[in-house]
Amino acid sequence: MTVPAAYPRVAFQGERGAFSEEAAVLLVGEEIDLVPRPTFDALYASIREGAADLALAPVENTLAGSVVASLDLLLESGLHAVAEVILPIAHCLIGTPDAAFERITSVESHPVALAQCGRFLRANPQMTRRATLDTAGSVREIIRAADPSRAAIAGRRAAEIYGGRILREHIEDHAENYTRFLLLSPTPRTNESANRLSLVVELRHVPGALHRALGVFASRSIDLLKIESRPIPGRPWQYRFYLDLHASLNDPATLAALDELRQCTDSVRTLGCYPAYDPTSCPIRG
Amino acid sequence: MTVPAAYPRVAFQGERGAFSEEAAVLLVGEEIDLVPRPTFDALYASIREGAADLALAPVENTLAGSVVASLDLLLESGLHAVAEVILPIAHCLIGTPDAAFERITSVESHPVALAQCGRFLRANPQMTRRATLDTAGSVREIIRAADPSRAAIAGRRAAEIYGGRILREHIEDHAENYTRFLLLSPTPRTNESANRLSLVVELRHVPGALHRALGVFASRSIDLLKIESRPIPGRPWQYRFYLDLHASLNDPATLAALDELRQCTDSVRTLGCYPAYDPTSCPIRG
Repeated sequence: MTVPAAYPRVAFQGERGAFSEEAAVLLVGEEIDLVPRPTFDALYASIREGAADLALAPVENTLAGSVVASLDLLLESGLHAVAEVILPIAHCLIGTPDAAFERITSVESHPVALAQCGRFLRANPQMTRRATLDTAGSVREIIRAADPSRAAIAGRRAAEIYGGRILREHIEDHAENYTRFLLLSPTPRTNESANRLSLVVELRHVPGALHRALGVFASRSIDLLKIESRPIPGRPWQYRFYLDLHASLNDPATLAALDELRQCTDSVRTLGCYPAYDPTSCPIRG
Repeated sequence: MTVPAAYPRVAFQGERGAFSEEAAVLLVGEEIDLVPRPTFDALYASIREGAADLALAPVENTLAGSVVASLDLLLESGLHAVAEVILPIAHCLIGTPDAAFERITSVESHPVALAQCGRFLRANPQMTRRATLDTAGSVREIIRAADPSRAAIAGRRAAEIYGGRILREHIEDHAENYTRFLLLSPTPRTNESANRLSLVVELRHVPGALHRALGVFASRSIDLLKIESRPIPGRPWQYRFYLDLHASLNDPATLAALDELRQCTDSVRTLGCYPAYDPTSCPIRG
């Protein structure tokens, strides 16, 4: 008799049914132990506390931009990015099982979700907006309250999990709405197909410092995919830079660029080197 | 008999008592007509609609980073930055006039303010957090409800305006907490002391494009103060860049750099050229 291998425990931010849960299943498959965490703080602490083997963290949305609270904690956590996944974000208006669209007078969700459905909400001024801390959690709340005049904005998975009724689909302003997540592990891992490199760089406080730092990649034709500046807490008007590059730690040119980068900056941290998201090779085993 | 000149009407985002109101008074003085606007959309529409002469918009906080919703609208609005002001952000715990710290069981504020007081809230787990759409508006609400168990997090000015009782001051995690605002006008204006230049650049989609764009300034020793990347809606994984430079449109080297920049990018928009904030020369007349 063989003992079945335990499923990997994957932490995500939000309640059961969150977009992050959907992304975790898309990347790692249904054979996982889902570990919901209420906040980004709790998400990033989950591996250290022994509650999860891996954590899935959102880092960027194509409308809202970088998920900066997550990026800040990623750096602090010391965790390593080992994979990425890109999830299309489709917002639904979800009511109680007996709800009717015409009778909805209030809509609750996380402020970012409310903002992403601005056009829908402006077209329905009879619906008062209420801010909450979580999209899926808003669905759970309206179901618990059993009030057919209240609706929530969240993903389809939240409606399925809590038994909500989908009153409208795709109420987001822009169809091209994707969130990119990184799968985080306590140990670094760079497999052969890795072609994305994420770094955090602190520059010297001298004129032209960013131009010089980017030059180590430009001179080697290494493509910069994204740059995000974040304030350094306690040092007003100074920034650190998150760089995503089309590069691999298996490539000697990348290693030479990193050597040169270290010489002209205050610090360089590698967040991870991982394969670009490929739906045809998912789910992976975490 | 002389007719007194009308005060400039200055719009800001938030309720009366918001940090933005404090910044408006710091920059323009007490002799202004304050025009509160509930959302960034309404703030940016206020001049176009004839409700205000000037608008004061937050663009950056030294802990939270860029106020990206504001930056996105600034670009759309076609308004021009004519001055900046930097406000120290001090969060207070504010209750009803008869409140006592020991009896507070819930704290409400905008999610960003709650996040900036994370240490205080973790040290007081008896206080449930509630997300709202506005800091000062939360104070107005708890005063209206007259419930001594409810408190709000907001600035001192909100407590004064609504008659709230300050139960704790400086509950923010970091003392070095500043927000930078731009004063926006429908007409551009570059005075002699202007030494800050704000631009928005869309790069060609070719490797090394950002390095090349920054080179036009680095080669002229023009210092880049800040760079912010923002997603271009509808074009996933493409970005525009907000640049703040130590530069003046009165300087021929800056004009030459801008010419060269236009040749190597898809588009360049000047948001404004204005003097760096100087507390000793404030308030100005808007």
